[in-house]
Amino acid sequence: MTESTGLLSPVRAGTPVEAAVSDEAWVQAMLDAESGLARAQARLGTLPPEAAEVITRCARVEAFDVRAIALASRETANPVVALVQALTAEVAGKDPAAAEYVHRGSTSQDVFDTGAMLVARRAVGLIRADLTAIARSLGELAGGHRDTPMAGRTLALHAVPTSFGLKAAGWRRLVLDARDRLDALVLPVALGGAAGTLAGYLQYADVDGYAGDGYAERLTAAYAAETGLAATVLPWHALRTPMADLAAALALTAGALGKFAADVLVLVRTEIGEVAEPAVAGRGSSSAMPHKANPVLSTLIRSAALQAPSYAAALTQCLVAEDERSAGVWHAEWLPLRELLRLVGGAAHTAVELAGGLTVRPERMLENLGLTGNRVATERVAAVLAPHVGKARAKALLTEAGQTAELTGHPLATVLGSHPQVAPHLTEAELARLLDPVAYLGAAGDLVDRDLRD
Amino acid sequence: MTESTGLLSPVRAGTPVEAAVSDEAWVQAMLDAESGLARAQARLGTLPPEAAEVITRCARVEAFDVRAIALASRETANPVVALVQALTAEVAGKDPAAAEYVHRGSTSQDVFDTGAMLVARRAVGLIRADLTAIARSLGELAGGHRDTPMAGRTLALHAVPTSFGLKAAGWRRLVLDARDRLDALVLPVALGGAAGTLAGYLQYADVDGYAGDGYAERLTAAYAAETGLAATVLPWHALRTPMADLAAALALTAGALGKFAADVLVLVRTEIGEVAEPAVAGRGSSSAMPHKANPVLSTLIRSAALQAPSYAAALTQCLVAEDERSAGVWHAEWLPLRELLRLVGGAAHTAVELAGGLTVRPERMLENLGLTGNRVATERVAAVLAPHVGKARAKALLTEAGQTAELTGHPLATVLGSHPQVAPHLTEAELARLLDPVAYLGAAGDLVDRDLRD
Amino acid sequence: MTESTGLLSPVRAGTPVEAAVSDEAWVQAMLDAESGLARAQARLGTLPPEAAEVITRCARVEAFDVRAIALASRETANPVVALVQALTAEVAGKDPAAAEYVHRGSTSQDVFDTGAMLVARRAVGLIRADLTAIARSLGELAGGHRDTPMAGRTLALHAVPTSFGLKAAGWRRLVLDARDRLDALVLPVALGGAAGTLAGYLQYADVDGYAGDGYAERLTAAYAAETGLAATVLPWHALRTPMADLAAALALTAGALGKFAADVLVLVRTEIGEVAEPAVAGRGSSSAMPHKANPVLSTLIRSAALQAPSYAAALTQCLVAEDERSAGVWHAEWLPLRELLRLVGGAAHTAVELAGGLTVRPERMLENLGLTGNRVATERVAAVLAPHVGKARAKALLTEAGQTAELTGHPLATVLGSHPQVAPHLTEAELARLLDPVAYLGAAGDLVDRDLRD
Amino acid sequence: MTESTGLLSPVRAGTPVEAAVSDEAWVQAMLDAESGLARAQARLGTLPPEAAEVITRCARVEAFDVRAIALASRETANPVVALVQALTAEVAGKDPAAAEYVHRGSTSQDVFDTGAMLVARRAVGLIRADLTAIARSLGELAGGHRDTPMAGRTLALHAVPTSFGLKAAGWRRLVLDARDRLDALVLPVALGGAAGTLAGYLQYADVDGYAGDGYAERLTAAYAAETGLAATVLPWHALRTPMADLAAALALTAGALGKFAADVLVLVRTEIGEVAEPAVAGRGSSSAMPHKANPVLSTLIRSAALQAPSYAAALTQCLVAEDERSAGVWHAEWLPLRELLRLVGGAAHTAVELAGGLTVRPERMLENLGLTGNRVATERVAAVLAPHVGKARAKALLTEAGQTAELTGHPLATVLGSHPQVAPHLTEAELARLLDPVAYLGAAGDLVDRDLRD
Repeated sequence: MTESTGLLSPVRAGTPVEAAVSDEAWVQAMLDAESGLARAQARLGTLPPEAAEVITRCARVEAFDVRAIALASRETANPVVALVQALTAEVAGKDPAAAEYVHRGSTSQDVFDTGAMLVARRAVGLIRADLTAIARSLGELAGGHRDTPMAGRTLALHAVPTSFGLKAAGWRRLVLDARDRLDALVLPVALGGAAGTLAGYLQYADVDGYAGDGYAERLTAAYAAETGLAATVLPWHALRTPMADLAAALALTAGALGKFAADVLVLVRTEIGEVAEPAVAGRGSSSAMPHKANPVLSTLIRSAALQAPSYAAALTQCLVAEDERSAGVWHAEWLPLRELLRLVGGAAHTAVELAGGLTVRPERMLENLGLTGNRVATERVAAVLAPHVGKARAKALLTEAGQTAELTGHPLATVLGSHPQVAPHLTEAELARLLDPVAYLGAAGDLVDRDLRD
Repeated sequence: MTESTGLLSPVRAGTPVEAAVSDEAWVQAMLDAESGLARAQARLGTLPPEAAEVITRCARVEAFDVRAIALASRETANPVVALVQALTAEVAGKDPAAAEYVHRGSTSQDVFDTGAMLVARRAVGLIRADLTAIARSLGELAGGHRDTPMAGRTLALHAVPTSFGLKAAGWRRLVLDARDRLDALVLPVALGGAAGTLAGYLQYADVDGYAGDGYAERLTAAYAAETGLAATVLPWHALRTPMADLAAALALTAGALGKFAADVLVLVRTEIGEVAEPAVAGRGSSSAMPHKANPVLSTLIRSAALQAPSYAAALTQCLVAEDERSAGVWHAEWLPLRELLRLVGGAAHTAVELAGGLTVRPERMLENLGLTGNRVATERVAAVLAPHVGKARAKALLTEAGQTAELTGHPLATVLGSHPQVAPHLTEAELARLLDPVAYLGAAGDLVDRDLRD
Repeated sequence: MTESTGLLSPVRAGTPVEAAVSDEAWVQAMLDAESGLARAQARLGTLPPEAAEVITRCARVEAFDVRAIALASRETANPVVALVQALTAEVAGKDPAAAEYVHRGSTSQDVFDTGAMLVARRAVGLIRADLTAIARSLGELAGGHRDTPMAGRTLALHAVPTSFGLKAAGWRRLVLDARDRLDALVLPVALGGAAGTLAGYLQYADVDGYAGDGYAERLTAAYAAETGLAATVLPWHALRTPMADLAAALALTAGALGKFAADVLVLVRTEIGEVAEPAVAGRGSSSAMPHKANPVLSTLIRSAALQAPSYAAALTQCLVAEDERSAGVWHAEWLPLRELLRLVGGAAHTAVELAGGLTVRPERMLENLGLTGNRVATERVAAVLAPHVGKARAKALLTEAGQTAELTGHPLATVLGSHPQVAPHLTEAELARLLDPVAYLGAAGDLVDRDLRD
Repeated sequence: MTESTGLLSPVRAGTPVEAAVSDEAWVQAMLDAESGLARAQARLGTLPPEAAEVITRCARVEAFDVRAIALASRETANPVVALVQALTAEVAGKDPAAAEYVHRGSTSQDVFDTGAMLVARRAVGLIRADLTAIARSLGELAGGHRDTPMAGRTLALHAVPTSFGLKAAGWRRLVLDARDRLDALVLPVALGGAAGTLAGYLQYADVDGYAGDGYAERLTAAYAAETGLAATVLPWHALRTPMADLAAALALTAGALGKFAADVLVLVRTEIGEVAEPAVAGRGSSSAMPHKANPVLSTLIRSAALQAPSYAAALTQCLVAEDERSAGVWHAEWLPLRELLRLVGGAAHTAVELAGGLTVRPERMLENLGLTGNRVATERVAAVLAPHVGKARAKALLTEAGQTAELTGHPLATVLGSHPQVAPHLTEAELARLLDPVAYLGAAGDLVDRDLRD
């Protein structure tokens, strides 16, 4: 049974995040949650240290049959019940007394959610590192092409000129925004007991509930310390902010990478050809066409970016969960959470290679910039003429001149230079200079410089 | 690498649909697509029958390394290129001449999409059979409880009475609606070649393109016959109606089952207790609380129903795919398609057990029906009083009487019977009879009878 | 208060569908539901015909304060309660006796849902007509450009050639698929009474509930006849198949139109220029750039297509509604239903103009087809060489030759013709003929012909 | 044309946020963007102060025909072009020279996006204030019911006891989380010019582009100062982090309020009756049933919460926008952004009333807590017995005893007290004390205290 080899999700097949969120990794994380809980109780003196030690030693996924746990989970709607039974048996095999202390005072959701946060932390860490690498490469592209002119494109058409550096700086900025959102995530331990009051934990610790001498707080802190996760005051079984925050940060990351890929997919088009994906032997080959080298990296990234918002919505809707633990809403979080981590992780890993190996073709950029016969800079001439003839007239005049130039084949500067309303103010040579797209990059260079400082 | 054992998706862990849509099943389906294509070409005399036979013999997933294919798919953004290489090698090992005929004239998308339709057909078949079983059980519940009164509930409160039979008939109707939508699906072969013109197929068959003597049509028909799928006139590489139809039918099925589960989850509540899930030893046990028997079947079904609309949206958005084959949009279909099939298939399988084993408690229904002191049938008295005092006055009068009855603890019939505007028209005994919820089921029985005839 | 002038949704601003789904139209439809219900009861002799007549006469939206009804709806969570009060007052002003028969035996959801179906029918009718017009225009484009060669594009790159006729036929096919789905919709009256048993209707008609002499069935049929909607056996208050079907059909329609727009947005790119949107004075002008004529029609259509799947998901999820009427789930359907109707209706209306006025530039198509130096047809040469040198060698050889041609600038036919493995089989002239993209359209013409027959 | 009176969205009908995001408000915000831009340029000395003053004076929505602008927006795919024309005419009427300075150097997206941020800021401010009010009310409920015992409910069944105070504290915590996310939003001015280089602004200011003497930076800062929005280094025309952040924060807010509503809808159920919505005359009345007082506030809130994730997904997907300005992706943001603001704003406003007026019924909570015959506290006895008989045996023993108690009708303490494995350790009186649900609230009180400190 290997139905998730990645066959249907090449964007993450074989990437590090795939292993980090696998079912094995998830079971290991839940085992880490169990052992961390035992150690936390031991820290507070309410569980024998030796028991915590045995439990920790036994809590290794290799000793467990993941598929059997998965199958058993149908009987209880979550995998923790079966995992606790198996862990108890495993511990009992080593030390029967210690087995009494497995999952002591706990509930399935504490273990599952803590495990999920451990998995998320690992995956987010991988993603974060990849984003840093991507930002570095994009920063180099931005700096290196600070003054490389290219057509700005809006609504599918050439607008005014921009620079490739500014475009790359924009990609980088989005990636850094995404990294900021990931950095802001708070991934907490889950510790609530059967209904969020920690009653079981207190009872087993023989602590009087209401007053409790701060035991609940101390146990949560100890658990956080053992797992390296955060502590919250209130148990979050039914308060799913951490999940919604993950959904949001991952969707933003997917979108940031998706924007990068979408732009590359425009720029690699046969007719445009301004960038190319890193050339690797055999990469991008077609099963039918000998001549093609498909832009597979951006294709993979885009495929992930298209899916992410839906999975994020599936996860976010689970905020609306009735009761102290809902019947089905909690359970609906698991798949979209993993898929988001995996898709975004795969996309980030793929984008490292794309950003690091992107071929830029300034000569094609320049060539394309000339396609409209310098009409991309008419805005500039309009600005210069406006004080003389009025803004509206200047715009109308340039629209007409552009059409004339296109129909007659004469250069736009010539057409304009001979126009009675233009001639008094600008010579053909001045017009030619103003219409030179390369000279009309506005603040592009300045923007790149300032942005790269951050 | 077994990261999809079902650990995070107990609704489908171990159910038949899981195997039917596994990566192995998908590779087998793509191999079936390849061999079917070879046989189709052989039928038309454009490929040696012996080659088709060898290809068919070799096209067994057991001979292939699915993980290796998945990993290789990163280089080409789809798994077909690597699969074709592996199949070619496999065939060459048996018969080098036959290897020349593997994937002849074809393109990755033809093979992938045809494979996907084969997988979908199998999964849909399983779902369909489960829906039939569910409908049968629900039909029995509906018929058996045709006259079992229970509280109708609207906006969380008791409304007027209904019958459990009518409720069960409603569940059944939704399930039959879903089955109808699945039955209406057209699952076609994909046959377009590199850009949807079938040029490669024609060229290899040495058929002149434009006229082509109907070869394209005949090849499509032969391919459909070999695979048992439908034929379309136009290749659908970029015309994704079949995917959108699948998304819609599966989302409806998920919703139909989700409605059933959502109702069960209301009716099993501790305070309501009108139905119970089938009792199975160990089923529904909690890791913390000895006394609980959780409604795990409806929990699992609901978890699937909550996710399905998001995955369906992810799939449907892929209709908007530019060009003859998009870079990323096609690739974004694969995961949500499988997940939909798997979640819905799991939910259907789970619902067979829920519908077949649901315990109904008419006595609790009756007891709950009495909770409002017969105020659930005040609508009826309003209808009887309206001709005498006017509709608005009747309604206001009943509202007041209901509040008086609640405050004083007197029976509603007594309060009403002593009201100066009611007394002239209705005695307390008549009022008591009118207020009897059990006698106010409207057309419920009739509706059940008529619906079950279908 | 005109917050929905269309300012944020230009795709539908001022189009016929906008008025058809406006709040006024919705109130009129609910009034039509009320009057149709009265007439249906009159048909069966359980309501005085004169009352039905007065109610019908009064049921004109002009007499009602829509905003006041909307504001009042906050008190009851739906607009029907206030509407019924206002209608009752209106009728009472004309004929106090008739006022007793307004909304007789009914419930809010019967009126709202029947009204919603009337609105949907009208909007779907408009959409359907527009789809027919679009299909006609696209059919003409397909037929007229049956043999116009253009580059097939896959994964952003030129693949093998196709024809513009085949592309247009594909757009048409999707539009016809969408129309088929709309035609298959069943839009039923809602008639269930307070909890779906029709008890109120039976009680007011003084019909004995259980047996009821078929009154429920006859009333439903009469209601359907009066409104022109369909009848269902079971009331569908909590069985939302009609909503899910609408969501699916509208999402498919949006996707079909979105695919058309997405392709146009590729083809109008400055570098590609193979089609242009219909030129209308002032259309597509930019606030900044005098030279631009933006592709606004496809921009608007795409904006609608991007949103539709999310709204469809919002609507479809409402299948999972607990009880006889949910608290909030029903209410969550209204906005996404209207928005879907309005966006899709606007997109269809916009696409009529786009399809009807699209400028096609065969010369640019031909020019672009030559951009790769005929490498778009290497698949063909591979097919011819394969029998001689083997499929794998043929493909490798063409890949190499393509690279050589690109590096050296020599024509591909020349490079190939001098290759020792090719020369024995094909002359340069033969190669040049085989590589001519215009001659490699496969079955494109045949496919167009066959598809247009339908 | 008043198609959005709120008729289909009672959750926001007539609430302050509705007016704050209306089309009029949007036009006013865009006018504020235009005048703010003029004043910013005047600040830097590149536009005559008098012109800025006239433009500011003219920039009042009352002077404009919003519907006409909306209709005209179909020609340019956005409403800014027509608005600029109308504003220019308006200004020209007052001062022809000033008219030359309207929209100087600018582009549609600068004005639209800045306007959108101004609208969002106002709406978010309203929402924030409502969240504060809700949190205050919930804090009072939490503190006041710190020790009010009620059944904890998990998977639809009674679990262990909790307190109503802890439940209310949880609702409050989510609301504060939402407020934190809103507070963290950065809402920036948009200032990029035609393609994000600010070239037009620089040209009109006659500033040399590349170096520019920091003009771009200073203009952005001045614009931010004039509008009260934030400044970003890079123009964000195609870097949509602010939109994705808004989507995320609003979806979280919707979910937080939805969780509150979902819980209320459970607790108001006829059989449960532990809370009631604030009673207002006429509120919650049914069009059919005199006796009902529907929970309309939570119904409305839930309806909004169900829709929000889909709209948030629609907005978030727009991150993937190609080019310097996409054709259609930007345009697809507008509706979901407004709908999110409006739905969440309406839900927050509604929740102020719900939280402020919620009736709590401790006696019903206590009564329900007894429904399982104290089985809700068996976890506690298990904890006490575990050291004596082992954890597994203790749990099994309690499961059996619970079933025996249910079958025989004997109190659970009696059944347990006579059990040979229990009797040696616990007397019936001790058992009765341990099983008292009221005494098993764990750390609930402590958690409430600590959480309310924040």
